[in-house]
Amino acid sequence: MCSKVHADIEMPMARTGDSTKTNGDRGKRIQKFALKVERCPGLVWQKMWKLGREDPRRVIHSLKVGISLTVVSLLYLMEPLFLGIGDNAIWAVMTVVLVLEFTVGATLCKGLNRGFGTLLAGSLAFLMEYIADEYGPIFRAIFIGAAVFLIGAAATYTRFFPFIKKNYDYGVVIFLLTFNLITVSSYRVENVLKIANERLYTIAIGCGICLFVTLLIFPNWSGQDLHNSTVSKLERLAKSIEACVKEYFNENNIETTENESSEDPIYEGYKGVLDSKSTDETLALHASWEPRLSRYCHKFPSQQYLKLGAVLRHFCYTVVALHGCLQTEIQAPQSVRALFKDPCIRLAGEVAKVLMELADSIRKRCHFSSEILSDHLQEALKDLNTAITSQPRLFFGSNINQDSNMLAVVAAAHASQEHQKDSRVSLSSVKTELFTLLEGKNRRVSEQSKEAERKFLSRLSSKTAITSLEFSEALPFAAFASLLVEIVAKLDHIIEEVEELGRKACFKEYKHGDHIVVISERPQIIVAQNNFPSQGTE
Amino acid sequence: MCSKVHADIEMPMARTGDSTKTNGDRGKRIQKFALKVERCPGLVWQKMWKLGREDPRRVIHSLKVGISLTVVSLLYLMEPLFLGIGDNAIWAVMTVVLVLEFTVGATLCKGLNRGFGTLLAGSLAFLMEYIADEYGPIFRAIFIGAAVFLIGAAATYTRFFPFIKKNYDYGVVIFLLTFNLITVSSYRVENVLKIANERLYTIAIGCGICLFVTLLIFPNWSGQDLHNSTVSKLERLAKSIEACVKEYFNENNIETTENESSEDPIYEGYKGVLDSKSTDETLALHASWEPRLSRYCHKFPSQQYLKLGAVLRHFCYTVVALHGCLQTEIQAPQSVRALFKDPCIRLAGEVAKVLMELADSIRKRCHFSSEILSDHLQEALKDLNTAITSQPRLFFGSNINQDSNMLAVVAAAHASQEHQKDSRVSLSSVKTELFTLLEGKNRRVSEQSKEAERKFLSRLSSKTAITSLEFSEALPFAAFASLLVEIVAKLDHIIEEVEELGRKACFKEYKHGDHIVVISERPQIIVAQNNFPSQGTE
Repeated sequence: MCSKVHADIEMPMARTGDSTKTNGDRGKRIQKFALKVERCPGLVWQKMWKLGREDPRRVIHSLKVGISLTVVSLLYLMEPLFLGIGDNAIWAVMTVVLVLEFTVGATLCKGLNRGFGTLLAGSLAFLMEYIADEYGPIFRAIFIGAAVFLIGAAATYTRFFPFIKKNYDYGVVIFLLTFNLITVSSYRVENVLKIANERLYTIAIGCGICLFVTLLIFPNWSGQDLHNSTVSKLERLAKSIEACVKEYFNENNIETTENESSEDPIYEGYKGVLDSKSTDETLALHASWEPRLSRYCHKFPSQQYLKLGAVLRHFCYTVVALHGCLQTEIQAPQSVRALFKDPCIRLAGEVAKVLMELADSIRKRCHFSSEILSDHLQEALKDLNTAITSQPRLFFGSNINQDSNMLAVVAAAHASQEHQKDSRVSLSSVKTELFTLLEGKNRRVSEQSKEAERKFLSRLSSKTAITSLEFSEALPFAAFASLLVEIVAKLDHIIEEVEELGRKACFKEYKHGDHIVVISERPQIIVAQNNFPSQGTE
Repeated sequence: MCSKVHADIEMPMARTGDSTKTNGDRGKRIQKFALKVERCPGLVWQKMWKLGREDPRRVIHSLKVGISLTVVSLLYLMEPLFLGIGDNAIWAVMTVVLVLEFTVGATLCKGLNRGFGTLLAGSLAFLMEYIADEYGPIFRAIFIGAAVFLIGAAATYTRFFPFIKKNYDYGVVIFLLTFNLITVSSYRVENVLKIANERLYTIAIGCGICLFVTLLIFPNWSGQDLHNSTVSKLERLAKSIEACVKEYFNENNIETTENESSEDPIYEGYKGVLDSKSTDETLALHASWEPRLSRYCHKFPSQQYLKLGAVLRHFCYTVVALHGCLQTEIQAPQSVRALFKDPCIRLAGEVAKVLMELADSIRKRCHFSSEILSDHLQEALKDLNTAITSQPRLFFGSNINQDSNMLAVVAAAHASQEHQKDSRVSLSSVKTELFTLLEGKNRRVSEQSKEAERKFLSRLSSKTAITSLEFSEALPFAAFASLLVEIVAKLDHIIEEVEELGRKACFKEYKHGDHIVVISERPQIIVAQNNFPSQGTE
């Protein structure tokens, strides 16, 4: 505590004392700043280029907005058009700026909200005007004030309803805006009906231009975006699971230096799925405003995409837990892992294959065939099961001496003996490492303040407390295997939802021999609430 | 297929044929509709009441908007004010409608964006006007059109930058809007500077009123909301974990009918945490615009709250996986669970206690003391460890006959023998149930079409395929225990982030004896990348 205060007092002194040095610093800083400014246009250009290359639709959309604005400005700039519409052409410009969005759905949503909001507000304002018209100016002012207060408070309160917030928020805002503009200006302007009328039809012109541009010039569909994002989520999950399982079994073979870089693809894979909720909901909302995309379907099944998204997120939580097995401090020794390496990797590969197949079927908008996949998946499951049941005395708790003996036995039991040596090495090396760490850190600690030392020791003791717990060595592997099986079980929910999506979105039938058989014979692993694995038909 | 087509043909005939019945139906429908309409006002009133009771700030905010609108309307309605400001008072009304938001941060964010956007657009438009002023009307029209196109496209493209999208999207829209309005109308209006000027200061008046109302009349702070939501997330997670572990050990005692209703609190608990990302980010963004909340802190640490939120979400994924252990089809038998019931429930209780303590410390804005908690947590961990290591021959794979024998052995080994009978009962009952299911369903299936039958059978076979796999019985329990230990390990990240939050938000120190000791001796369980549990100091 004291040393910090001391440092705080010293700092300003140092600053004022050495002014020549500060001047030199300032010169350097200015030079640096100048360099930065010089590089700035290049950097901005680079970023802009990158942004456009990532998604060229962005460039097209920008040009579309530019064109629409120019067209709508012509209403004001060209003499014959201006004479017809007049000063209110400015409302059309405003509408284009506010309504033209990236996708068709978003534009339609905003445009219709704006149109209906204005219409409703205009009608209401006209009614008010009709009532207030007969009275004197003071009564009218009070009447208008009261109406503004009441409608303002009521409309704002309405916006708190989740349903309205989600679908019609913009409409309510525009309603309130238009109502206030018309009501208030009606106090001093004679012909309110004309104002309301002109405002309405200039807004209609603006909306018309927006719809024309958004629907007919390189349209971007929210529904298509949602579709694509669903496909990419499935593919990413597939890659993530495969990478995760491979890393679990390889990380001791590959050196730890490579570990950090190889960890990224797993996290990158599922991160997008975890955070997809709000994006998906927005896309689905906008997609529900879009006219139907294909000839076959009556309505874009945005709700089904959302359901599939939710199931994928839930699936993803298990993948995160699986990834957690790689990062936890209680790790199964490599010898234990080696026993189950092949069946686990195979199972993960089959899961990834099913996910890829599903992604592919959604991309091509056709039903999937999973006859073959299901067989392979079940074979892989059985293999893992055989591997686990073939090691009857694996899961036990004991101290380290016993452990290493038992590990040797277990490793010897395994057909390939190549990992036996590794396990002993890693066992002793970890122990040595920890001791070195303890010693080295303790030495360093003594040079620091007492508080930090106490803190560090308490950390170290809790750390050793958790790592020294003599949990059975196979416990962490059991968790890993169990999560893997859980993933297979949850895969079924995904398959169900994709099938449902296929039905609702009228996917093409899978072309391979008798397609009815293909559709009906997809693998479905019902998640039952059995508390016990029973002896079944297989 | 054929029957469906047949039904499709029959339907319209039925409709047209029985017109008297249809008329009766229509009458009933109209009656129903009338009843609904009659009840509608009551329902709407109920919903409105509920909405207000959930959060009374909503009612206050609505009244605030009403008052602000009335006040700003006075600019137009009252003679002396109107003479000073004129027709442009309408811009102030517009600003109030668009800028006044629920929280101080959101209002400030929008208001400042609007202000700066207008200012920038006004300056640029004035510059354009200055350049174009010297030429003839045709050149001016072309020049204005080109400028509108270029600035429109450029500004829209800028909105795709994530940084600008996040912080200044509204500002860019307002910039574009104002620029277009001024530039286009400058073609026909003489004194553009006056327009720009008036628009600017009426917007300033509108923003001023908004700020006054939002800051001084019952202000709602985004920062406070973020703070409260963080506290509630911690509390919910605590309840969720406790409920989850309790249900895991009780679900066979309680009948399955109660299962569904008792499942809700767990999901309800963590659901809010899972979906918190976008809400938190919006709150943090708005909080970063708010002036400091307390006397002690220079800045509200919204980024630290976001970091804590991310760690909580990550913690939550493990809780979801733990919850998944309750729902999976491969369940550990109750006899195995009973062996570890007490230590697991105790450990979960301790974890929940730590989370509650953290929530409490954040709520009271003071540092936490976790001396006592850490001891208890470690004791609970050790107990669980002892329980697991005391069952050396638990994890094995075999067929069911062996299983039931071994279960009896295991159960006999346990001090209280009350669960032994249960396990046998459940074991046989599950088997019986499955056979009944198989038989019953098969009988029903024969009455249905061939396609459905084939589908059903394939489902059933995959289901039995997964449940009949002879995974070791303790495998699912091992996953459960491992996830529980993982939760304890991840708790440390939360403790770290809460401590960091305490430092950044200048929390009060914990008052209990020597507070320095308390702060430094908090439990910290470092998550190290050790591949092997080592023999530590304990």
